[in-house]
Amino acid sequence: MSARTVRLALIPGDGIGPEVVAEAEKVLDAATATSDVHFEKTTFSLGAGRFLDTGDTLTDDDLVAIAAHDAILLGAVGGVPGDPRLKDANIERGLLLKLRFSLDHYVNLRPSKLYPGAAGPLANPGEIDFVVVREGTEGPYVGNGGAIRKGTPHEIANETSVNTAFGVERVVRYAFALAERRRKKLTLVHKTNVLVHAGAIWQRIVNEVAAEHPEVAVDYLHVDAATIFLVTNPSRFDVIVTDNLFGDILTDLAGAVTGGIGLAASGNINPDGAFPSMFEPVHGSAPDIAGQQKADPTAAILSVALLLDHLGLQDEAGRVTRAVEDDIASRGDQVRPTSQIGDAIVERLQA
Amino acid sequence: MSARTVRLALIPGDGIGPEVVAEAEKVLDAATATSDVHFEKTTFSLGAGRFLDTGDTLTDDDLVAIAAHDAILLGAVGGVPGDPRLKDANIERGLLLKLRFSLDHYVNLRPSKLYPGAAGPLANPGEIDFVVVREGTEGPYVGNGGAIRKGTPHEIANETSVNTAFGVERVVRYAFALAERRRKKLTLVHKTNVLVHAGAIWQRIVNEVAAEHPEVAVDYLHVDAATIFLVTNPSRFDVIVTDNLFGDILTDLAGAVTGGIGLAASGNINPDGAFPSMFEPVHGSAPDIAGQQKADPTAAILSVALLLDHLGLQDEAGRVTRAVEDDIASRGDQVRPTSQIGDAIVERLQA
Ligand SMILES: CC(C)[C@H](C(=O)O)[C@@H](O)C(=O)O
Ligand SMILES: CC(C)[C@H](C(=O)O)[C@@H](O)C(=O)O
Repeated sequence: MSARTVRLALIPGDGIGPEVVAEAEKVLDAATATSDVHFEKTTFSLGAGRFLDTGDTLTDDDLVAIAAHDAILLGAVGGVPGDPRLKDANIERGLLLKLRFSLDHYVNLRPSKLYPGAAGPLANPGEIDFVVVREGTEGPYVGNGGAIRKGTPHEIANETSVNTAFGVERVVRYAFALAERRRKKLTLVHKTNVLVHAGAIWQRIVNEVAAEHPEVAVDYLHVDAATIFLVTNPSRFDVIVTDNLFGDILTDLAGAVTGGIGLAASGNINPDGAFPSMFEPVHGSAPDIAGQQKADPTAAILSVALLLDHLGLQDEAGRVTRAVEDDIASRGDQVRPTSQIGDAIVERLQA
Repeated sequence: MSARTVRLALIPGDGIGPEVVAEAEKVLDAATATSDVHFEKTTFSLGAGRFLDTGDTLTDDDLVAIAAHDAILLGAVGGVPGDPRLKDANIERGLLLKLRFSLDHYVNLRPSKLYPGAAGPLANPGEIDFVVVREGTEGPYVGNGGAIRKGTPHEIANETSVNTAFGVERVVRYAFALAERRRKKLTLVHKTNVLVHAGAIWQRIVNEVAAEHPEVAVDYLHVDAATIFLVTNPSRFDVIVTDNLFGDILTDLAGAVTGGIGLAASGNINPDGAFPSMFEPVHGSAPDIAGQQKADPTAAILSVALLLDHLGLQDEAGRVTRAVEDDIASRGDQVRPTSQIGDAIVERLQA
């Protein structure tokens, strides 16, 4: 029996990205050391650093080369805020969002779990274990906007959210299928009372798909009310489905209440398999602490678990998750350098 | 010396609205009993109840009549969620937002303060005392949107955020003036890295107005990061200025971390005085507990303090705020009926 080969694109990126990806790689290697799978890795130099060196953000050649892989692991991209040399570079839109849009990552999967031992800001958090299914390819993120009379007292700047039945239905179906495998509860979050057009298409499609899933209890919350429940009663959530912008906001808040975005993992998934899916910590590049071994690699390592699960390697994914859980449970107040956290998790995997 | 007359429009509304407005009125009367000001009150029957009775949401006659007042006190509007008779009524857009837009309430002022004795969800909240200055007349709330192929698998629903230099500048100027009177710190919240057009006009105008206020320390946060800080370090905020939608989200979250939206007051302000300003609790009509004396009238009462302050009655406003603070400090775990809370605050005012 011949080993399966997985072509993995690595994008360490900027700031703490390379540090956390190094630990994630260690863990990936350890978790699959005895598996019948071989990872063929290619590292892509992308991000603010590359832009400063070459002026390129993401070339067509980069995109073609990355798309030829089976999966992508990304650390974090983005330069020092306010760096004048990056004034006209929009690394977020030109690189991160360009990857998500070009590779049709229509499911942005963001689990939130309060692990025993993780210290969050809430006095009485209760059990927290939910997943945000954030739409990844449309909504307010499409970039359809512009300005007239720019820079004058008469400027008008517009930004249009585009929501298609095609785009909403596929992500809503994914969310319902996920809810079927979990606690069978789905919450649509939007702002239907104000954004009546965008809201109506989401509500209609959720209602339609709900009819095919009589076992799933469905409810609805306005985004403002959802933020209240995330701090007063996060246990009420199982699967949240929402648009690109509301998902962005809710998942940062969710990361905070479950112990910080140092622990929050995510997958940018193309469920059809037409393009490689991309796994990345929710946190950014944190240039202020880069190169100092101060970053927590846990979010990147949990992103590896999501990657393994996506590749059908459930055993390996489960082992990584359990090793991380055990590590978090034993942390207490100790502060360890980035690589020691990775090593400790590798040791647990090898035990 | 003749008493000043203030024409006050009361809109008790639906659900718990009438109950909390009744207490707010008691407090208003008590706080101004010995003042040289006389309130001439007119009550307007508006909301889901009125819609069900008459089919009207807000007529032109209503609007003209309300606009002839000096100020407005609103309880809460909105019917029972899912009531089929309200399917085609949008009380939020047709009444609440119509008032805010027609009366040019371009400053939506929402203070957040953690009062001693108020129990919030955070384990270590620190001192919380900031004000969100939310734009009230444009952004994603304009209602400029629509759908084609509605109800079909090919539907496309758009929603456009409209941001004008005129609209952004006037609210930003208000926020800077407020920061000058407070701790001289202003945070712009937006999502400039993704919503590049809407984001750029906000950032440009904040930069321009900042140059006129060298004493004010200015920073910027993406909306997702801002939600993190609201639960991990809310003390960092003094004045937040933001658009209509981000302001909606941040102020519900801010209400939650400072002890619940039962305490959160707001003013919809037309600083030019061309139209009457409107004061209302941030909470909704909560039809599930309506008529049971279970609602906390504190948010409505603190909205009276904002109203008095807006009318130039700073002494009276300060007395209401202090009476509320003393009441909150003495609450402990006791649960009192709505009217008892109002009575207790009135007693403190009379003491
Ligand atoms: C960096 C930014 C473009 C991105 C987003 O808004 O999606 C980030 O906040 C995230 O959540 O992954
Ligand atoms: C009821 C709704 C239209 C309103 C808003 O979104 O502004 C409410 O949430 C608020 O914050 O006052």
